[in-house]
Amino acid sequence: MTKDCIYELEFLVRDYECDLQGIVNNAVYQNYLEHARHEFMQSADVDFAKLHDEGIDPVVTRIELDYKLPLRSQDKFIVCIKLHREGRLKFIFDQAIYRLSDKQIMLNGKITAVFLNNGRPVKPDNIIKTLLEKYDVQ
Amino acid sequence: MTKDCIYELEFLVRDYECDLQGIVNNAVYQNYLEHARHEFMQSADVDFAKLHDEGIDPVVTRIELDYKLPLRSQDKFIVCIKLHREGRLKFIFDQAIYRLSDKQIMLNGKITAVFLNNGRPVKPDNIIKTLLEKYDVQ
Amino acid sequence: MTKDCIYELEFLVRDYECDLQGIVNNAVYQNYLEHARHEFMQSADVDFAKLHDEGIDPVVTRIELDYKLPLRSQDKFIVCIKLHREGRLKFIFDQAIYRLSDKQIMLNGKITAVFLNNGRPVKPDNIIKTLLEKYDVQ
Amino acid sequence: MTKDCIYELEFLVRDYECDLQGIVNNAVYQNYLEHARHEFMQSADVDFAKLHDEGIDPVVTRIELDYKLPLRSQDKFIVCIKLHREGRLKFIFDQAIYRLSDKQIMLNGKITAVFLNNGRPVKPDNIIKTLLEKYDVQ
Repeated sequence: MTKDCIYELEFLVRDYECDLQGIVNNAVYQNYLEHARHEFMQSADVDFAKLHDEGIDPVVTRIELDYKLPLRSQDKFIVCIKLHREGRLKFIFDQAIYRLSDKQIMLNGKITAVFLNNGRPVKPDNIIKTLLEKYDVQ
Repeated sequence: MTKDCIYELEFLVRDYECDLQGIVNNAVYQNYLEHARHEFMQSADVDFAKLHDEGIDPVVTRIELDYKLPLRSQDKFIVCIKLHREGRLKFIFDQAIYRLSDKQIMLNGKITAVFLNNGRPVKPDNIIKTLLEKYDVQ
Repeated sequence: MTKDCIYELEFLVRDYECDLQGIVNNAVYQNYLEHARHEFMQSADVDFAKLHDEGIDPVVTRIELDYKLPLRSQDKFIVCIKLHREGRLKFIFDQAIYRLSDKQIMLNGKITAVFLNNGRPVKPDNIIKTLLEKYDVQ
Repeated sequence: MTKDCIYELEFLVRDYECDLQGIVNNAVYQNYLEHARHEFMQSADVDFAKLHDEGIDPVVTRIELDYKLPLRSQDKFIVCIKLHREGRLKFIFDQAIYRLSDKQIMLNGKITAVFLNNGRPVKPDNIIKTLLEKYDVQ
């Protein structure tokens, strides 16, 4: 399950993340994916505070999520991240969630992000350079 | 903005829904959309508890969200719902979020749901009948 | 139930706020109480942004919550606010939650807040003046 | 900081847990404390599902939280649990949160719980026995 991931993060379902149906609420998967992306960027020394001071902010513009199987209380799982560029301005995060016990895929996500400089998309050359050096993103 | 909506629900952004960037966190929009869908079904007298007792549960299988503009503290907004069927088994909820002050569209969402009977998709005839009578969904 | 409240706000339980046990999760009550406090301050024209620009920020230092009965899906309820000062520096918000259908008390809360100016508690004279004029807080 | 804890759990602040003020939202601390309590009970093989089947459910009746210092993005921290009984029916969880980098205490909490059998408090003898054997709770 992890062959092509450039970054993985392990989580444990917390009971307050489950809803009336006894499964993790649909919105909570976005929390998981966001936290994994931020940890990934952090691990590559992409410094959001420094970027922000330069007027550059990452923004998610589109999210596609395919719910395969529900996570439940006490489930351990992995968020796997792949990354590629689309055109000059877009980053695409392919993120999948795998249950740890049986490697079953629970969710497939495609998250599109751009970097805005005072509201306008910018070519994020410094960020790419940082990621390239660390993870060899094309 | 509301011409084609079969259902609308008004919300006010709550401060705890905003994150570090001073805007509503991306995952929270799913909370808004889910609450609007549940209120919509409730308004059409679709009784989840009764369905559940018959072994039938609605499940979201896919979510697509386009983030247009961010909601901020104190913003009032409308969640608009349109609904159509796709094939025999799928319900598609087209949900848009409009800022109340200027009718700007903030988010476009397409949510795919099916009804499962003990894990298998079923043709939700009773639900369709109920919705047809109330909202004339094709 | 509302005799002594200086401010009331009505809510509806949203399904995503309920947890595995089928009731509103304990932490969510703090969301309700916070939102009611912020709307209350807003209604009294206490301008947090303006205060923040003057270096003054409200901070909760202590919370006491007594859980009486659980809120459930579709429950409507009122958050009632009373307010008094304790010593020169502390604001005490007495907040109660009542189920709308039968006026049953669901939760009693006592929230202690101070106003910090660059990390030090300050006597919040302007805020008191604003609240006094509007709500006659002693 | 950990001398008297019978159970400890390490966390990392996630960005979506922070609010407009750039710090962890007050309500989120209850999520941390709840998750730590559930993991603690789990570690002692207290089986909630089995208890539930016997008609016994743990319920929080009172929460007191003293907010000392705010947690921020990327902070690592420990939730420490102490436990004692009060009278025949009440469990008291003393829970403290310590920032890992400097052992500073961030929050002190006292959570009162009882075990209900069909709505009436019961003396939780089996649970006590389990905890006694594992953690020597008096």
